[in-house]
Amino acid sequence: MTAFDPASLRLYLVLDPDLCGGAEGMIRTTQEALLGGVTFVQLRAPRWKKRAMAECARALLEVTRARGVPLVIDDHADVAFAVNADGVHVGQQDLAVDDCRRLLGAGKIVGLSINTPDEMRRAPVDLVDYVGIGPVFHQTTKRDASPALGLEGLRTIVEASSLPSVAIGGIKTENARAVTATGVDGIAVVSAVCGTRSPRDAAASLRSQIVR
Amino acid sequence: MTAFDPASLRLYLVLDPDLCGGAEGMIRTTQEALLGGVTFVQLRAPRWKKRAMAECARALLEVTRARGVPLVIDDHADVAFAVNADGVHVGQQDLAVDDCRRLLGAGKIVGLSINTPDEMRRAPVDLVDYVGIGPVFHQTTKRDASPALGLEGLRTIVEASSLPSVAIGGIKTENARAVTATGVDGIAVVSAVCGTRSPRDAAASLRSQIVR
Repeated sequence: MTAFDPASLRLYLVLDPDLCGGAEGMIRTTQEALLGGVTFVQLRAPRWKKRAMAECARALLEVTRARGVPLVIDDHADVAFAVNADGVHVGQQDLAVDDCRRLLGAGKIVGLSINTPDEMRRAPVDLVDYVGIGPVFHQTTKRDASPALGLEGLRTIVEASSLPSVAIGGIKTENARAVTATGVDGIAVVSAVCGTRSPRDAAASLRSQIVR
Repeated sequence: MTAFDPASLRLYLVLDPDLCGGAEGMIRTTQEALLGGVTFVQLRAPRWKKRAMAECARALLEVTRARGVPLVIDDHADVAFAVNADGVHVGQQDLAVDDCRRLLGAGKIVGLSINTPDEMRRAPVDLVDYVGIGPVFHQTTKRDASPALGLEGLRTIVEASSLPSVAIGGIKTENARAVTATGVDGIAVVSAVCGTRSPRDAAASLRSQIVR
């Protein structure tokens, strides 16, 4: 496995094609958000065909690599492989972590979504680089999301984990400081950056609240 | 690339989870249809999560391998890789054929959907094992299908191709003989087998019409 740097999780942007306005919008959002301090990018386009996803991912990689920031693909390890992305992020119903690791190899990032303490206990710690824990608060961008954990629920899972972690779900400037105080390595956002007037300002504002 | 046997395309079953009644139904349909003479199976479940798809594919592989029939996965090369399926089938908007070949290796099957003479001309013949040409007739199971080719349209594409080919789209016992007379190596069916009272009888009836 790579020597994964938990500091790269500090401000984790999940791109949403609808909020950003398609491929062009996601590329522009990424460019701006990187200037605002984003440290990690995930391409998540669950309703897109893979040809379009791969094309967009290749364009995004030019942007992220220029700033040394990782780009992972949500769900589709085959797309990650095809475009030589930095890794894949999978949920509990997606391809198993060991299959992703076998497909992508030791040098790539494999992230896993965690919604409950039990899922955290069952996470294959030797195969996963980081966990995404959430949703912390009520959120609107993920249709099939689990119930919100709240700050105490988040803290319980973080404290039980030895893996680098990023919190997700309803995080914005107003609550970012309280979230990072639970011990997570970073925060992940969708609508707090995607579709905002200035993704750069939005990212900078979030970044200023991260106390770690 | 494998020494792909065009005879395996003779009667090609595309599994539909809705018509078959879920994973159990697809496994039962496959068992019966193989007894009726099906020579190739594709798992196509575009709205399923990959964990469930992989689980179902593993169960299907036990059934198909016992009879020496290939099983390919629609669209998801990563699932095909994870379960060690016999290959993948991709459409024009899915992952590119060269990426699938690179991911799965030379020993696996890569099939490509072709809807127009132009797509046939642009098909990477050195990387593809077979093409699926269609839709021949009006069909109801694929939501985003192209306009029907008709028998003459099919024949034009088949004659322009050096690759093994299977025709798809609205094929049933009544028109199967006319379809095979265009020169294709086989016919692919969905609703002519999935969801019928006896998939075995349905397959045997289709098989009896294949003149090649």
